[in-house]
Order: sequence, then C-alpha cells, then structure tokens
Amino acid sequence: MRMVDIITKKRDGYPLSDKEIAFFIKGYTKGDIPDYQASALAMAILFQGMDKREIATLTHEMEYSGETMDLSKIKGVKIDKHSTGGVGDKTSLVLCPMVCACGAKVAKMSGRGLGHTGGTLDKLESIPGLSITETDEQFIDQVNDIGIAIIGQTSELVPADKKLYALRDVTGTVEAIPLIASSVMSKKLASGTDTILLDVTFGEGAFMKDLESARELATTMVEIGNSLGRNTKAVLSDMNEPLGYAVGNALEVKEAINALHGNGPKDLMELCYTCGSIILEQAGLASSKEEADTMLHKVIEDGRAFQCLVNMVKAQGGDISYLYEPSKWVLSNNIIEVRSDKEGYIKRINALAIGEASMKLGAGRETLDDLIDMSAGIILDKKVGDKVSKGDLLCTIYTNKEDYNELIPDIKEAYEFVSSPVEVHPVVWEVVE
Amino acid sequence: MRMVDIITKKRDGYPLSDKEIAFFIKGYTKGDIPDYQASALAMAILFQGMDKREIATLTHEMEYSGETMDLSKIKGVKIDKHSTGGVGDKTSLVLCPMVCACGAKVAKMSGRGLGHTGGTLDKLESIPGLSITETDEQFIDQVNDIGIAIIGQTSELVPADKKLYALRDVTGTVEAIPLIASSVMSKKLASGTDTILLDVTFGEGAFMKDLESARELATTMVEIGNSLGRNTKAVLSDMNEPLGYAVGNALEVKEAINALHGNGPKDLMELCYTCGSIILEQAGLASSKEEADTMLHKVIEDGRAFQCLVNMVKAQGGDISYLYEPSKWVLSNNIIEVRSDKEGYIKRINALAIGEASMKLGAGRETLDDLIDMSAGIILDKKVGDKVSKGDLLCTIYTNKEDYNELIPDIKEAYEFVSSPVEVHPVVWEVVE
Repeated sequence: MRMVDIITKKRDGYPLSDKEIAFFIKGYTKGDIPDYQASALAMAILFQGMDKREIATLTHEMEYSGETMDLSKIKGVKIDKHSTGGVGDKTSLVLCPMVCACGAKVAKMSGRGLGHTGGTLDKLESIPGLSITETDEQFIDQVNDIGIAIIGQTSELVPADKKLYALRDVTGTVEAIPLIASSVMSKKLASGTDTILLDVTFGEGAFMKDLESARELATTMVEIGNSLGRNTKAVLSDMNEPLGYAVGNALEVKEAINALHGNGPKDLMELCYTCGSIILEQAGLASSKEEADTMLHKVIEDGRAFQCLVNMVKAQGGDISYLYEPSKWVLSNNIIEVRSDKEGYIKRINALAIGEASMKLGAGRETLDDLIDMSAGIILDKKVGDKVSKGDLLCTIYTNKEDYNELIPDIKEAYEFVSSPVEVHPVVWEVVE
Repeated sequence: MRMVDIITKKRDGYPLSDKEIAFFIKGYTKGDIPDYQASALAMAILFQGMDKREIATLTHEMEYSGETMDLSKIKGVKIDKHSTGGVGDKTSLVLCPMVCACGAKVAKMSGRGLGHTGGTLDKLESIPGLSITETDEQFIDQVNDIGIAIIGQTSELVPADKKLYALRDVTGTVEAIPLIASSVMSKKLASGTDTILLDVTFGEGAFMKDLESARELATTMVEIGNSLGRNTKAVLSDMNEPLGYAVGNALEVKEAINALHGNGPKDLMELCYTCGSIILEQAGLASSKEEADTMLHKVIEDGRAFQCLVNMVKAQGGDISYLYEPSKWVLSNNIIEVRSDKEGYIKRINALAIGEASMKLGAGRETLDDLIDMSAGIILDKKVGDKVSKGDLLCTIYTNKEDYNELIPDIKEAYEFVSSPVEVHPVVWEVVE
C-alpha cells in the first residue's frame, strides 16, 4: 500500500477502505508517513469529504492510536460535555458542577485555549494552586469520591490527533468536517466516558460559519458516537455575541461563581439548563426534560452545585477562599471604560473581534508557548438587544499592557447597531439526537 | 504574510496576488516554507485552479528561482521542443537533427525518464561514450559549431521546480494544469530559447487523459510562453498506442537512426514532419507549411539530417560507429516472442501498460536511483489498425531479467481487438497557436 495512491484515490472522490484509513493513521502516528503527504490528504478530504463509514473508521483508528482510559472503576454513569469553541464560554465551569450535584459522574478531560477561543483549563488555572494534572488513578479516585474532575488530557491519549491537529492548523485544513468530527470524537471516545453532549457553535469566530454546517458537523459526530456505542447528543448554539458578560480567565471564573449562586447571565444559564437537562436524561438520572429542569434549578437554589465546584477545586489543590471571596483576585493595572460613539439597538457583537481583542489584552495565546495574564479580558456591559445611547458604557477592558488604546477601535467596531428593536434568539437553536 | 493564509485563500477559490505567489516560490526554494504547506497549497491549486495571470506569475517566479541561461551568443534562431511524456517517444532524436539540417539552432535541455515514460537523455546515453553534461560555454560553442546540442538541465536552473516536482510526485498533485504548465514553461523559459514547440500528449498513460484536458493545458502553456515573449506553439498528439514500433532505450535509438535514413514508422514520421514544419515557420526558416515540408523531406533524403545526429553524438563524445553500424549494440540475453491468443483488428495498444512492462523488463526506473538496462524493451510487430490472427506475432520482448513470464499476460492485455476494420486517426489531432 502506498500513501500517494491513497491521496490520489481521495482526491478523485473515491471512498477510502478501512485498511487504507488504518494504514494512514498508523503510519502517520509512527512517523513513517511524512507531514507533506498527510497535509495533501487532509486537503483532499476537505474538498471531497468522507462518508459515514470512513469517518467512523477514521475516528476509531485515531481513538486507538495511543492509550485509552478505562473508567469502569467509576461507579455510576460517566458524562462528558464538549464545546467546539466559543468566546466567553465558561459553560463547563457552571454546567459540570450542576449535573454533578444532580448525581452525574463528571470525568472530563479538557483543553487549553488558542487564538480567540478560551480554554477551560486556562480558566481553572486562574484559581491559585489548582492543578490540572493527575494520574489516571487520582482522576478515577476523585470522580468516585466527589463526583467531578476536570483535568488536562494526558499525552498518551490519541497521539494521532495531536500530530494531525497541529498540522491542520498550519495547512488550511482545519475546517474539514470529517477531520473536525474525528478529532473531537476520537478524544471523547478515548477518554472513556459513557455519554457525550456536544455544544456545536456557529457564526463568525466558530469553526462552522452557519447553522447548516453546524448541523452537518453535529449530525456527523452524533452518528459516530452512537455507532461506536456511546450515547451522544448535540446542541447547536450561536456565537452572535460572546456568551455571558465576561471574557478572560479570572473574569469568567467570577462570572461562573455568580452563576452557581443563581446570578448568571441569561444566555449562559439558558445554555446550562438546556445542556444539563439533556445530560441528566442521557445519564438516566431524570425521566423527562421537566424533571431534569426542576432538579437543576434546585441544585442552584440550595447551593449544592456551587459546593461541587468547591469540592473539585479543593481536590485539585486550588485555594477555595477565592471561590467564597472572589474579590481576592487581583485586578489588572489598567481598567478602561469603552463608551459608544453610536446609538441604536445592538444587533450583534462580533465574538471573533472581542475574542481577539481579549487575547491581545493578555487573556489568550497566539501560539501554544505564550503565557496568559489571568486578570486580563473584557467585561461587556451591553448585550444583543440592548438599547444604547451615545456615551453609554459598552464594555470595560482589563489589562496589564499599556498599548491597549489601539485595540479600542476594533472593540467598538465589533458592535453592530440597528435603529429598531432587535428580537433576541435563544442561544440554543436546535438539539441533534 | 503567512503561508497558511495563502493556502486558505486558494482553498476558498480566490486568486493569489503576485506578491503571494512570489512569497511562496521564494520561501519554498529557500527552505523557509516547509513541504507540508507546499503540498497543501498544491492540492488546493489542483481543486481550485489558477487564472492566466496567476499561472504566468507562478511560471515567472519559478523561472527566476535560480540561474537562467543566456543564449544570446548563439547566432540564429534558437528552437526548443518539449513533449509532456510518451511511450516509445523518440521524436527528439529524429526531429532535432531534421530541423538542425534545415538551419535551426537546436539548444535543447532534456530530462530523464521516470515510471512508464522514457526520457531523451537515457536514450542518448545508450550510445557508448556520449555525455549529456556540458558547461554553459561548451553548450553554446557546440550549438554555434554544429547547430545542435541535447544535454541535461543544470541543477542551477529552476530549483523551485526541482523541489516542487519531487513533492508533487508523492502527494497526488501531479495532474494540476497550473502546476504542469508552470513546471514545463519555467524550465523552457529559463533555458533561454527563442521559440518553443510543445507536444502535449493525451490518453491513458499521459498526464492528460483526454483531448479536452490536453487542449486546456496546451492553450495555457502557449499563452504563458507568448505572454512572456517567446514564440510558443503546441500540437496535441494521442497515445492511443506507443509511438513507432520500438520501446526501450537502445531499441529506440536504432529506430530513430532508421527514421533518419527514411525508414521511419508512419506515426513517428507524421509527428516529426508536422512538428518540424511548425518549428521551421516559427524560426522564420520557411514561409509556408509546404516549403517547410519540402525542406524536411529533402534533409532526410540527402542524409543531412542523419549527419546532424552524427555531428552531435561526436561532439558529445559518443561512439559514432554505432550510428553507422547499429548491429554493434549488444542484444538482451532473453528475446521472447509474444503471440496473440485472439483475432481481429487492433483498436488500441495501451501505452501505459506497454510502458510499465518495458520499465519492468529493465528499460526504465521506478525511482530516480534505479539503474537502466539500455538493451531492454519491447519491439511491437503490429500497430493499431492491423489485422491479427491467432498465433500471430504481437511483439518481441528484450530483457536480461529472468522473471519476464509474469509480464506477458499484461502485455497481451494491452491489445484491444475489434471485429471490424479500424480507421487510424493521425497522431496529431490539433495545432494550438
């Protein structure tokens, strides 16, 4: 079997056999197949697509390209949740404690942020002392003890994805649905969870630019998950604006704490309740959406959801005093109000522009080696649908950098105004199951 | 400027700017842009194409990626001829001496064979002693002295193509018209000739599978050549069967010698006369096709064309006694007749299959490091249109290998028979100018 024949076959629109896909993934992981052939194949896949069988095989081969987690020692239904990337997306920090408090076992491996999208691990690390590194045994023990753990993925899981993702990032082949789907699902499958809920974002700044593409990606991933024996569902959520008000690591953790106290932003809570209901049903912990919804509201009201976050932070070595007293977080040196030059109703807040501005203020990294300033970011004051007059506060920026002034025009430009009232669409557009 | 943005732009179907194309070629030649980005871009170009301006810029940047030849010291009109690859294609060995004898200056840089297609350099090297390596000065002096030189391309010419061609060969990106056109034309332009005649082959075994694609490639190359100041024309010739009767290095040189003595196969001579007429008109040495045709027939009849080949072989150190006495070439150890199991009229002789069989008999190389057996190959006994009875000789194979038996079924399979007489189409289908 020759790699050039596999590339040519896909280039000409023919489906690859299971053996050909296995040959590629095994050879590439081992280093026998060079990057320049892998990138050519990735580009051919981007143009020609893959059918369901090919994507399932690709996912399966990637899943078993390294070690896989055995979570069978964890009692109860293990749940996992994954977002394809958002701005201001602190959902995991709120949702995971909520479903944990309702009895689900949250055994979650998460990722770091890159570019304009944040990562749950970075946000967690803004809590002093907290570690996101655990041995498999520690991870399993923690979930058995307190029902929740969110840690970084170990390097032994899915090495094929690690190589392929880095390659796709620099060869213009990130956007291929078969490659996104197999990348996400191979990691979720290898991490050993029983149920998977996917939050597939769409809009500018997301992988998927529109609802149709998001639906296609979600359907593909749900089919793969179910065909490979995991209960998998997805929600399609838009990025018509950042999620909630806070963008930036410590700023988002504080917003998550407020949310667990019942004071969360409307869009964030809507997403958490919708996803939480689905997860509780998937896990068999609730027999209907209504029952799940009641349970989820109850654990917010009685403080048990917040307590789950406290338990997790404590178990992972974090200083829980910050959770009880969020004012302990040191603020940035520069706190600047951004006020509107325009008036009208906000139709859209470009999440990509806000995410990139936040990254440049210090909250994110352009390359994986960059250091993050945990205090940096943006707090929105207005959201889509709000009425704004000239001079009104749009947002506040937090940074320890001094060259923030040049970012302000871009931030203002992110707001799109219209003259008549705007109807706000719920953040979740569809559920794919 | 980032290479990933250039890849993404082409992937999404947008034309690249001149600066972007220059950035790619300069960076890739220098080694700043890695192979895995170049192969992703090549695949994107294969799917999205390039417009005329992009292809002209790509060709120009490749042409100037290294040194270029200055042929201004050669008196007279310098002509060059290039084939996109054929089986049994000894045209250069016959045509170049013919036009030289008519007064054209043949300053030709040629290539080696790879896979099922042969290369003029390998054929020339079957003449004992002949060297295809010369300094620029020797090359220019030889053309001034005797009107003809065919040598290998120096490594300083078009280094971008050298790298890119090797990469395309292993990444399934050979077939992209913008890449074929810029590869061929950058080399022709850098070698400094005044006029260019392209023989664009089509059919199984050629880069271009059908007449339409061949026409597109030819038109593209003719436009590039003319837009960059060289008189460029093309013929479209089919590979419905190998050209002439002989396939294999020394076997083809012997057929070329016969052709120069006026005993050439019909299809080979037709191609040589058609191309020769165009070249003589391009060079201003004949004012009409008829005049050119008369001149070309004359130099065959009076032996001046053959004398030009003798002069060239002598100037390049070859043993000319082989030209006068072709029986001096040592034959292969094994000479096997292949006879027909079928009967009927030959509709087609698969040139790809014959070329691959010849390569496996020792006449060609699978990789550039393979050694060639100059005596190996195939002599066809029948051509398209011939009537065949069971037991008739189809061809004779020449090899020093012992495992030739396993190739015989493939060779027989190359012949397609029909029950009614076949009309033979002239080898040249169209002239593109």
